[in-house]
Amino acid sequence: SYAEGMESLINCTEEQQPSSVMTNSWYNQEACRSQKAKCAGGFVLVHAGAGYHSESKAKEYKHVCKRACQRAVDQLRAGALAVEAVTAALVELEDSPFTNAGMGSNLNLSGEIECDASIMDGKSLHFGAVGAISGIKNPVLVASCLLTEAQKGKLSAGRIPPCFLVGRGAHDWAVGHGIPPCPSEKMATKFSLSAYKRNKRKMELAEKMDTGQNQAKKRRQSSENENGSGCLDTVGAVVVDSEGNVAAAVSSGGLAMKHPGRVGQAAHYGCGCWAENACNMNSYSTAVSTSGCGEHLIRTMLARECSAAMQSEDAHQALLEAMQNKFISSPFLASEDRVLGGVIVLRCCRCVEAQPSPNIQAAMVEFLWSHTTESMCVGYMSAQDSKAKTHISRLPPGTVPGQSLAIEGGVCRLMGVVD
Amino acid sequence: SYAEGMESLINCTEEQQPSSVMTNSWYNQEACRSQKAKCAGGFVLVHAGAGYHSESKAKEYKHVCKRACQRAVDQLRAGALAVEAVTAALVELEDSPFTNAGMGSNLNLSGEIECDASIMDGKSLHFGAVGAISGIKNPVLVASCLLTEAQKGKLSAGRIPPCFLVGRGAHDWAVGHGIPPCPSEKMATKFSLSAYKRNKRKMELAEKMDTGQNQAKKRRQSSENENGSGCLDTVGAVVVDSEGNVAAAVSSGGLAMKHPGRVGQAAHYGCGCWAENACNMNSYSTAVSTSGCGEHLIRTMLARECSAAMQSEDAHQALLEAMQNKFISSPFLASEDRVLGGVIVLRCCRCVEAQPSPNIQAAMVEFLWSHTTESMCVGYMSAQDSKAKTHISRLPPGTVPGQSLAIEGGVCRLMGVVD
Repeated sequence: SYAEGMESLINCTEEQQPSSVMTNSWYNQEACRSQKAKCAGGFVLVHAGAGYHSESKAKEYKHVCKRACQRAVDQLRAGALAVEAVTAALVELEDSPFTNAGMGSNLNLSGEIECDASIMDGKSLHFGAVGAISGIKNPVLVASCLLTEAQKGKLSAGRIPPCFLVGRGAHDWAVGHGIPPCPSEKMATKFSLSAYKRNKRKMELAEKMDTGQNQAKKRRQSSENENGSGCLDTVGAVVVDSEGNVAAAVSSGGLAMKHPGRVGQAAHYGCGCWAENACNMNSYSTAVSTSGCGEHLIRTMLARECSAAMQSEDAHQALLEAMQNKFISSPFLASEDRVLGGVIVLRCCRCVEAQPSPNIQAAMVEFLWSHTTESMCVGYMSAQDSKAKTHISRLPPGTVPGQSLAIEGGVCRLMGVVD
Repeated sequence: SYAEGMESLINCTEEQQPSSVMTNSWYNQEACRSQKAKCAGGFVLVHAGAGYHSESKAKEYKHVCKRACQRAVDQLRAGALAVEAVTAALVELEDSPFTNAGMGSNLNLSGEIECDASIMDGKSLHFGAVGAISGIKNPVLVASCLLTEAQKGKLSAGRIPPCFLVGRGAHDWAVGHGIPPCPSEKMATKFSLSAYKRNKRKMELAEKMDTGQNQAKKRRQSSENENGSGCLDTVGAVVVDSEGNVAAAVSSGGLAMKHPGRVGQAAHYGCGCWAENACNMNSYSTAVSTSGCGEHLIRTMLARECSAAMQSEDAHQALLEAMQNKFISSPFLASEDRVLGGVIVLRCCRCVEAQPSPNIQAAMVEFLWSHTTESMCVGYMSAQDSKAKTHISRLPPGTVPGQSLAIEGGVCRLMGVVD
């Protein structure tokens, strides 16, 4: 039973901030559902992966999350749209050698780096993705450029612009669109190279032990812990801008020792990220980014499922149920004994309670994270905050990763003057 | 308005067959929903693409559909599972030089063939896909092999097997798993090579005309007809086996003159194909395969949407509404003036009406196709039929492709002895 692990909604904000109100109560929102809420400056939530974060790594992860939030908020304050701010956050997360995205990504079976990334714009509902791309420092920039280009309409001779490019073709398209190439050897770090050597030895040993035995049987029994630490640190971010538009993005170096050409959830529509502005059918604007074992996240389409769940009244309960029923207990993963992943979620709507002045409007941003991995590092910041807050969420003691979950979050009220 | 084009449900079977009852009435089914229906031998529905089929091409397309049905039924009669039978059908469709899949695929911008394919097993809910793969005659075999390998569980050292491989890595994985490579030049046909040269000239001319003008503006206005004919002939199949398991598969050479590395819906989870056996939550077993403009099919996740719709009582009405609301009028394609695609759908359940003997059980297989393209070529056959039936469905005269739709189908009752 994972019941103990599920209700750990905590107030993750120790310091009180002047411009945003955080609360762990999900029932006093008095929020109105509107087509789109003005979000006074905007808000960003980032993560540096669901996986395992030792205390020694925690500091680095928190730092990069803080910087990523700051980058997004800088953009938002300069009037950028959500899709631009989320890209800025991702670039910072990719540039960190500690995360498994861009610089410092896991090496594949051949000792090469191949990255996946995608981005979705809740306003236009356009999507851009790259899979198994090598030699580009910031894969999210390629995904973002694909999205922008697709929004321009058809190519010459009526050709439909691509939304998803992979491998060498993706690399060449990126360079052709002004994104500079980066020698692969510059993207590997001392850490990723030594992890590769260690994993290679481990694999050879495991395969040697298998020789002469019933390998099919062995495969099922082999330890699952080895994928646990450090290997799942996909990064992602969700943003709402001051106009109330949402966007989401995700970037990953993929599983360590993956087969060349393997594409994970980070490049997969509906699986790595999702963003949808409020519309006739949806009361809330929602944005989601996922992290964890790509195959599990693909087969459960977790990003889209969580986004759909967020249209329920109670965001916390809805995410809890989605993580339980659509992920841990999903019929699509019936044969898996451990289902590893995490999500960050943001939704927003306009407040109806009386404002201090008729031309002041408040928006309510609810933000949550949930994971079945041992830990998940997040950061968040509103454009009205002076600095980002960071937090490492951990499964409650005694619970089993892949079978239990943690869920936490907060609420931020953004007030702004309506023109 | 596309209202005229939508109600064209016709009885597409002129000849009456001894072993299967076809009817154009959707209300006299008296079908019971059960966890899984025994399907006495099984049933297959294939298509050779939604696009434009001239009368001269029609004969070839019908022939290949007929052969594909026969291949699947041969497998079913030999006791194969749905996933094996659907693979056999796809191999036949890919091998035809007339279809845009495998042999004879469209060439990309660089004059190369890069194929996408995927397969889903409704029993295990496993999925396998390859994207932008070159030098493999039958991409569906690689997708099928990925599915089979993933079902065996973890790889050495606890690594999770991939469900989606692209490019060079996909090719090397295939060859490493016993699938023979095929020189790319053998996969091009006289037709695909001359189409490439024609398209290349057309593009150069279009780009020359654009020079010095506002290209962004031009792009939106450029004619859309040029993607119409022949370029959308993705192939696919849906199967139910005698145990009532469903499977779906899809394979495509992609859009003509696509950018190298572009991956379309045929490799995209939830977009190219979908199959789900009946379970606690789903009354019907359903299988879907899509064809058309990959980007439109990705962004609407059409295969999964149609499958979900098929849980409604009235299959015909449900598919009609899904094609209208989730495709033609989808908010995800709001900026597109023509939405081009087609689907084949199969669902089955057990019959409850009195059988001639208590140990004879009947299952009801409903099969449909719908498309917004000018035409779509389909074939279908039950294991109790002596030969396949084929049909070219066309939009009603006067309707506009991309804004109107045609929908047709039939019902097949399969009777079998229960052990």
